Amino acid sequence: MINIAILGFGVVGSGIAEVITQNSEIIKKKIGDSINIKYILDLREFPDSPFADKIVHDFNIILNDDEVSIVAEAMGGLHPAFDFSEQALKKGKSVVTSNKHVVAEKGDVLLKTAEENGARYLFEASVGGGIPVLRPLGTCLAANKINEINGILNGTTNYILTQMIDFGKTFEVALKEAQQKGYAEANPSADVDGIDACRKICILAAIAFGKLIDPSEVSTTGISNIRLNDVKNASEAGYAIKLIGQAKDIDGKMSVSVAPRLVPHDNLLSKVDDVFNGVLVNGNASDDIIFIGKGAGKMPTASAVVSDIVDIAGRPEIKNQQWDKAEKTDLVSADDVVASYYVCTSSSEDAVKAVFAEYSALSLKDGEFAFIIPALKKTELDEKLAKLEVISCLEIL
Amino acid sequence: MINIAILGFGVVGSGIAEVITQNSEIIKKKIGDSINIKYILDLREFPDSPFADKIVHDFNIILNDDEVSIVAEAMGGLHPAFDFSEQALKKGKSVVTSNKHVVAEKGDVLLKTAEENGARYLFEASVGGGIPVLRPLGTCLAANKINEINGILNGTTNYILTQMIDFGKTFEVALKEAQQKGYAEANPSADVDGIDACRKICILAAIAFGKLIDPSEVSTTGISNIRLNDVKNASEAGYAIKLIGQAKDIDGKMSVSVAPRLVPHDNLLSKVDDVFNGVLVNGNASDDIIFIGKGAGKMPTASAVVSDIVDIAGRPEIKNQQWDKAEKTDLVSADDVVASYYVCTSSSEDAVKAVFAEYSALSLKDGEFAFIIPALKKTELDEKLAKLEVISCLEIL
Repeated sequence: MINIAILGFGVVGSGIAEVITQNSEIIKKKIGDSINIKYILDLREFPDSPFADKIVHDFNIILNDDEVSIVAEAMGGLHPAFDFSEQALKKGKSVVTSNKHVVAEKGDVLLKTAEENGARYLFEASVGGGIPVLRPLGTCLAANKINEINGILNGTTNYILTQMIDFGKTFEVALKEAQQKGYAEANPSADVDGIDACRKICILAAIAFGKLIDPSEVSTTGISNIRLNDVKNASEAGYAIKLIGQAKDIDGKMSVSVAPRLVPHDNLLSKVDDVFNGVLVNGNASDDIIFIGKGAGKMPTASAVVSDIVDIAGRPEIKNQQWDKAEKTDLVSADDVVASYYVCTSSSEDAVKAVFAEYSALSLKDGEFAFIIPALKKTELDEKLAKLEVISCLEIL
Repeated sequence: MINIAILGFGVVGSGIAEVITQNSEIIKKKIGDSINIKYILDLREFPDSPFADKIVHDFNIILNDDEVSIVAEAMGGLHPAFDFSEQALKKGKSVVTSNKHVVAEKGDVLLKTAEENGARYLFEASVGGGIPVLRPLGTCLAANKINEINGILNGTTNYILTQMIDFGKTFEVALKEAQQKGYAEANPSADVDGIDACRKICILAAIAFGKLIDPSEVSTTGISNIRLNDVKNASEAGYAIKLIGQAKDIDGKMSVSVAPRLVPHDNLLSKVDDVFNGVLVNGNASDDIIFIGKGAGKMPTASAVVSDIVDIAGRPEIKNQQWDKAEKTDLVSADDVVASYYVCTSSSEDAVKAVFAEYSALSLKDGEFAFIIPALKKTELDEKLAKLEVISCLEIL
């Protein structure tokens, strides 16, 4: 019998308990042993839950019980989730988590601690919820030089953008609906400002390139300034606007960013709608691989966490990947990034012509002129755009 | 240094050598050791190849060299690929392959042999080429009861169907083009008759359900009878016709089949076009997960084979999954399968009305009446259709 403890009995934590209980036969068949939830750590009591007798309020009970070999951290937030994870690993207990905040900020530390203590630290659920993407990226694509990753990594913003694209709703209306449906929080900043997507692309980049970039160093733009006019212009020109986390290898340096981007309709990411997530990985041998599924939600997220537990239970001896902290010299400056852009301006087409030698006009309506410019460096773009009255400017994928 | 041998220096074999050479730095960083191609087995000589000095013609040289710890089988066909794989495993050498023929017919035997001899047998490349799907299914979704798998598993037939759907070409014209482009062989039977897709769905089903069904027991229909009229009728009704390999769990029994099916436009599999493959896995916790990528081709396939080598090199001690042979009692009879159908008949709508209490009419043209009927049992369908002049009948996904 493998004894585990769950930290946090919220949405994900209760999902973990449910998946373990519901699929116990299948899990037993896979690992030849059963998983026993010995403790669930939470500040609250849950008298009506079938797991009521597992609830404890003191982490030390878990930490000091040598029978507990795996800890599933589902608390969210950086502290005390990080501290509890570190303490568990130091005791040789393996830790699994869906907590992207901890992994993106402290993944390098925890992987090292795990390795030093003969434990494992797994976090498949931290990116893409139930979608298998971290392990495939690290193993099935291990023989590839990863050139580029582009991901729709946040279901809330993808729902809002889909509502704007398909039903012509404004950002404000779509956000309110997302809140009513429980997809967005009362304070939606972590989602709509791209913070959540930023953490996830940092984790993907670390697996692909072996270096963990500090999320605060990633150029991150959210979707709150996306206007219906931009959505319509993009759509007519054959693009869908999606919030894309991007990690690229440019001559051995990493370029990592989050921004709303115009995705061409012939790219399958443009068809990943509503609360679904999608990750497109380009390897030098594999070519394009796309992973799509539910990026959040109780059961899909729990599916990934419990699969990590099954992995550890079945093969506790595997080494942990090790990440270095990314240094400034490992990173491409946002100023040096080369891309093509969609621009909307209140300046005249003549003014645009005077600034850009090459552009393709998209539309002229309500005094707004929208156009697309071929690839150029960000510094050059900024310099040129300073000569126009710019309403919006979005990168093209 | 990890010494490997490649069996077969055709498209996949030479791709394996190329990926190992081209990405040697990345691989070395991952496993802390380098991979050395010590031998390449082929009947031919390759005097102009950079690997000319590795070529051997006698498998025993590889078999009896204790320095060779991993064998990459890229010969294709059942014999002698199976025999060589078995002999290598019996010597404790791990084997990786892209050979779906061997895995689908003899995977259970080889996994057992591997386990008995402390070796590993991996075959990620045998399904979906470069797409990571077998390992994610076996590990990342390990905590799930897999309800259903639907896959576009053959690039050749998907290319042909895409040409029919998008450009109104007949099957014959599209097949000839596929042959000219090198996507289809001179004798295209293994592709167009669904044999290749059948082997792949057997492998997916074995990973999901732990039982290997004999491909000869799988109801398999190819695409050679698909008519342009059916493609058009389906398209107008909101479906794309795709060759779908399907494996379902029905009350603990397996239902496995390959057939052209009508895929609704809101299912992303309907957007997987040309030579791309796509696999949709539904788990009871993960919900729908879709994997998309290049299902064939030299480098994508080699990417998966070499990643398997990297996996073994980095962690030789992991257990192999074990499969039982599926017995008749494990399988749902094709007669008992319940589905809804698209039917095209030269009988009148009145005749249809007399047979089916419920149906929705799609079109009446050129003396052909097309309609859709709600879910019913296969035996009941056959009984009813016997009363009509049926031109075509296709299952709806």
